[in-house]
Amino acid sequence: MRKIGILTSGGDCAGLNAAIRSIFYRAQKYEMEVIGIKDGSLGLTKRPVDFIELNYPTVSGSLFREGGTFLGTTNRGDPFNFKGDDGKYSDLSDKIIEGYKLLKLDGLIVIGGDGSMKIFKKLADRGKLNIVTIPKTIDNDVGATESSIGFNTAVAVAVEALDNLQATAASHHRAMILEVMGRDAGHIALNAGIAGGADVILIPELPYAIDGIIKKLNEMKKHNIRHSLIVVAEGVKTENGETYMNKYADGEKRLGGIGDYLATQIIKKTDIECRVTTLGHVQRGARPNANDRILASAFGVYAVDLLAKGKFNRMVAWQNRGVVDVAIEDGINTYKLVDQNESLVDTAFALGIYIGIT
Amino acid sequence: MRKIGILTSGGDCAGLNAAIRSIFYRAQKYEMEVIGIKDGSLGLTKRPVDFIELNYPTVSGSLFREGGTFLGTTNRGDPFNFKGDDGKYSDLSDKIIEGYKLLKLDGLIVIGGDGSMKIFKKLADRGKLNIVTIPKTIDNDVGATESSIGFNTAVAVAVEALDNLQATAASHHRAMILEVMGRDAGHIALNAGIAGGADVILIPELPYAIDGIIKKLNEMKKHNIRHSLIVVAEGVKTENGETYMNKYADGEKRLGGIGDYLATQIIKKTDIECRVTTLGHVQRGARPNANDRILASAFGVYAVDLLAKGKFNRMVAWQNRGVVDVAIEDGINTYKLVDQNESLVDTAFALGIYIGIT
Amino acid sequence: MRKIGILTSGGDCAGLNAAIRSIFYRAQKYEMEVIGIKDGSLGLTKRPVDFIELNYPTVSGSLFREGGTFLGTTNRGDPFNFKGDDGKYSDLSDKIIEGYKLLKLDGLIVIGGDGSMKIFKKLADRGKLNIVTIPKTIDNDVGATESSIGFNTAVAVAVEALDNLQATAASHHRAMILEVMGRDAGHIALNAGIAGGADVILIPELPYAIDGIIKKLNEMKKHNIRHSLIVVAEGVKTENGETYMNKYADGEKRLGGIGDYLATQIIKKTDIECRVTTLGHVQRGARPNANDRILASAFGVYAVDLLAKGKFNRMVAWQNRGVVDVAIEDGINTYKLVDQNESLVDTAFALGIYIGIT
Amino acid sequence: MRKIGILTSGGDCAGLNAAIRSIFYRAQKYEMEVIGIKDGSLGLTKRPVDFIELNYPTVSGSLFREGGTFLGTTNRGDPFNFKGDDGKYSDLSDKIIEGYKLLKLDGLIVIGGDGSMKIFKKLADRGKLNIVTIPKTIDNDVGATESSIGFNTAVAVAVEALDNLQATAASHHRAMILEVMGRDAGHIALNAGIAGGADVILIPELPYAIDGIIKKLNEMKKHNIRHSLIVVAEGVKTENGETYMNKYADGEKRLGGIGDYLATQIIKKTDIECRVTTLGHVQRGARPNANDRILASAFGVYAVDLLAKGKFNRMVAWQNRGVVDVAIEDGINTYKLVDQNESLVDTAFALGIYIGIT
Repeated sequence: MRKIGILTSGGDCAGLNAAIRSIFYRAQKYEMEVIGIKDGSLGLTKRPVDFIELNYPTVSGSLFREGGTFLGTTNRGDPFNFKGDDGKYSDLSDKIIEGYKLLKLDGLIVIGGDGSMKIFKKLADRGKLNIVTIPKTIDNDVGATESSIGFNTAVAVAVEALDNLQATAASHHRAMILEVMGRDAGHIALNAGIAGGADVILIPELPYAIDGIIKKLNEMKKHNIRHSLIVVAEGVKTENGETYMNKYADGEKRLGGIGDYLATQIIKKTDIECRVTTLGHVQRGARPNANDRILASAFGVYAVDLLAKGKFNRMVAWQNRGVVDVAIEDGINTYKLVDQNESLVDTAFALGIYIGIT
Repeated sequence: MRKIGILTSGGDCAGLNAAIRSIFYRAQKYEMEVIGIKDGSLGLTKRPVDFIELNYPTVSGSLFREGGTFLGTTNRGDPFNFKGDDGKYSDLSDKIIEGYKLLKLDGLIVIGGDGSMKIFKKLADRGKLNIVTIPKTIDNDVGATESSIGFNTAVAVAVEALDNLQATAASHHRAMILEVMGRDAGHIALNAGIAGGADVILIPELPYAIDGIIKKLNEMKKHNIRHSLIVVAEGVKTENGETYMNKYADGEKRLGGIGDYLATQIIKKTDIECRVTTLGHVQRGARPNANDRILASAFGVYAVDLLAKGKFNRMVAWQNRGVVDVAIEDGINTYKLVDQNESLVDTAFALGIYIGIT
Repeated sequence: MRKIGILTSGGDCAGLNAAIRSIFYRAQKYEMEVIGIKDGSLGLTKRPVDFIELNYPTVSGSLFREGGTFLGTTNRGDPFNFKGDDGKYSDLSDKIIEGYKLLKLDGLIVIGGDGSMKIFKKLADRGKLNIVTIPKTIDNDVGATESSIGFNTAVAVAVEALDNLQATAASHHRAMILEVMGRDAGHIALNAGIAGGADVILIPELPYAIDGIIKKLNEMKKHNIRHSLIVVAEGVKTENGETYMNKYADGEKRLGGIGDYLATQIIKKTDIECRVTTLGHVQRGARPNANDRILASAFGVYAVDLLAKGKFNRMVAWQNRGVVDVAIEDGINTYKLVDQNESLVDTAFALGIYIGIT
Repeated sequence: MRKIGILTSGGDCAGLNAAIRSIFYRAQKYEMEVIGIKDGSLGLTKRPVDFIELNYPTVSGSLFREGGTFLGTTNRGDPFNFKGDDGKYSDLSDKIIEGYKLLKLDGLIVIGGDGSMKIFKKLADRGKLNIVTIPKTIDNDVGATESSIGFNTAVAVAVEALDNLQATAASHHRAMILEVMGRDAGHIALNAGIAGGADVILIPELPYAIDGIIKKLNEMKKHNIRHSLIVVAEGVKTENGETYMNKYADGEKRLGGIGDYLATQIIKKTDIECRVTTLGHVQRGARPNANDRILASAFGVYAVDLLAKGKFNRMVAWQNRGVVDVAIEDGINTYKLVDQNESLVDTAFALGIYIGIT
């Protein structure tokens, strides 16, 4: 193992630069050369391949404290069926595999979510690439690992927003709605909601009913609490499975806008004033907090060790207070949703938070 | 002057509690009793009047570090023509004046924006109330004072959002749009845009053109900068005076949604990916930063001194590094917009920021 | 179980108010009355007993977002052998037990570290008090639980200091030393050091040698990195077991001042400029971050459930992603130091950090 | 003016990178080449001269959000009488002037405090260098300008520390002492003290008496406030002009350690527990806040404009809400201390803060 590559793939999050730095530092021990591929798989399709050589000046300093990924990333979808700038679809997989060969890499560390890991597993199988993956996702929905890079910081950003909203809610005796990311998994909403003192937490895993929310708000009035915080994940559904669709800027219908929809319903059925905040990408780009930096550092070291040992097709994972490795398939196939029986759901119930119909 | 009241009125912002604490502390010197009226003018319409007596345990400790106002506030509009819960309009002015008398106040400090000051000036004239006002507004649009409470913190919140958005913009080579508050005045957008490294700043005072924005983004590409930050105030207009109206949760049309509209236009006319964040009330409820706490403290002290001296109908103001007092009318009548010739507009231009047609 | 008490004991930390709020909320489900005892065991020695009744207005709002403990605490040592203001020692244990009886408590939740838990276990045995404990300590040294309240936030504060020091270190090509808390356990230093990009981490569990530090700094110079960050826990020792003692303000010799001592040594043996920061209690009083609020919330709920079930003499603990309960003795007797073989020590080594002689 | 240089000199602070970026952006308008000289005047003494060429990739992105200076700086004192690594003194002035000529600079922007400005004015006079200066200092002691780069952020860092200390002070009923920077000027202490809710603020400009402090603490007890915050600048003196000297790590006596000394005195004369935090360089290295970034941006633009106009030997300054320019001598000669009659001193008094004998 003399020359390894790193790439970041999918939506950016906090801690990617910390993982890259950790990989570089560890690789020095093995005297490996480290190549940073630009813009995820896209860099491998360029000719010449788009990359930079990593060295001490590049990765030391404050880089690892920064959000995002200095290598760039892409989430333009499946390279096996890639929609080009001209709107036509083509298969870029051979080109990516060729890019890896052109760089003469002995191994590649892919930092990505379940989608990216699935793609790179397929690429690795097809092109006999030596890959190891590091899970990152603000949604924390990758299976087989307790934590993925980026989640803890995303929660912290949402909590900070709730802290601000609390003050204005109380001052005006209003309900403040915070819409957070989470199309399928409600981990951000659940964690941020508990930490941020939410009275209502709506997550995709538990159907909600407007009446349930209103009942909760009315109960609070009895204790003379006339303000409330409501956290809602983008992808929540009613009992009938209805999501709330919104036309976005690019003309396509997508999830989202649910915050505004909820406000309409509450205003219609109560005399409570509502205001809505949509956090959006502020959740992704924050500086990594201590937990994400530690996780990213531990993951990076372990990933290099796997390559050094010739253990390929493995995903690093955090389990029981330490790093382990599992088959990439284990991470991909066990998509991790909020489990109704998990400890934090109990905590939310116990605190009197409305978290949907259960 | 033996007994004074305080109330906070209009939209909440950071620093109100610091002003209240400062008033209380200063009033001790004069051995004044201090009454905190709840929920702005609404408290004075209640019978019994809704208030609390302030004392050391209430106002010391960490209260003044908190956002919002622990006295509560209201922005339900003009009490001379007040829309009740039943939808009917009535004149509450006599009731408010009566409330003041029932409390046997010798003076009242009103912490509010230009709207609240106008109302209380009218009430004071009618009911012979002894008032002094302290300007607060996140928009910094009150005239005759360089700064009002809440503005500096609101800018800081927007800058923090831009810092986060920068990382994700750069990672994905996108344009990120941040919509901030500001219906008529663009101070938040201008200040946050410069401090947050925006490439485009749109403010209500300067009409914008989509083509101007796109030209700027294309110029950046020439320097191989493929990401950008765009800050837009709610109330921006095109050269033809068009604003962007949006149907809100409560069914009424209001300003806003401009961020999403801009994204549509940019996507339509370029190949640049866009994402939108709407900060909303997160700008209001933040903890006051050092500058707002200092300003609030200085204002509070001075306002009590004015009452003690029997100088009524005055607004405290920050001018030339110190507190002064002006006639309330001066604050109300000289609504302060961004001036095309002011120093920061020059700075924005000089940095190559697109800030509209000038 | 109709009436329960809460007290906080020992050094304050972030998350105590969140635990108190959680206990109150959960107790409502059981219709328990909740008493907050002031200043730890001291409140129970006062006559009348010093306490407040908790209710919704007291505990809702932004209280749980605040650092410290609004009930007050004491770390004046062993009440069985208590040094009074007059300097004389006496046994307050009967008075404390009597206080509990006077309040007619059916149960008591003690939020404290290992010292406080030990004392209250003894009191409970002697007075037949029904107690449950919640572990809190910025040092994270309580055994049988993966985390205690306050640790995660303390790490975050230290990391923020390192982020600041990095910038000034790099600008001036200096070594910056950060002294953090930790007399026996190095968890704060280890975690903050990895997250904050330290080049040297010194912890009480691993003896250090000045020469080891200097060797590391010289190696860095080879990579043209002329600045460095050194994190040192108060209680570090050399191979010969030497600690660094300092005369404090109160005239007693204590641990600490080690940062300054290290600087002297480095300056003496190299040409590197050094500066020292001593964080002190800034680590304790910070607002709880999301992780500490979640932990505190989950602990509070569970502790009330234990009382409700009549399970006394138990400590709540975090194990394997959820709350469990263990015998108080298990928490007390298994003091948790940094284990040379733990995952993070490996990570530190792998990143090339000097962490002492191993 | 075709080629200009920038250097940062003296202690680092927040906002230097923002100034550098602003200079670069503005210089593009004039099609100037911009050279960044490394490590202040030291870079000009090296052969070849130590510098980097600035370009868009170097200065765009998140650089300007970072603390410190990416060009490096030095505060090794007077180059006219420079102490080398060998301990011998020599005159480097000709070498520096030669460095400027070797780079074929048409102008040089010096970002520094009063010391650096004095040195560069002398160098400019001697070598006929075309210079313009930008004032930076966390102490805000440069005259002729209301603000210098770095001060506002330093205050914010100190306030954050006070916010943390407040919680722990209140929990334990202690006096917490925060020692901040400020050898001659007390602006940081005064501003941070007011914003952070200090009960005692000691600044070099106003002599203090231990008895005054103790009287204040005793008065607070009467209001049943048993905790307090004390902010002290390094360089405070008693009425007899006594400062508190401490032997530092490098063996030299310097100011400082005053916090610990005060604690000793308070403990000796009262029954109040005290703890001390020394912030140190954490005040310098923080990320610039919005105010410092705006100031730095405005200064940078204006400084380039001055060079472009051929106006040399000028210092940019902030006066009356905008940037102006003054003779460098005006900045140097009017060292700006806290004026007993200034508005904030009045505010501090009015709030009942003890700020020394006046």
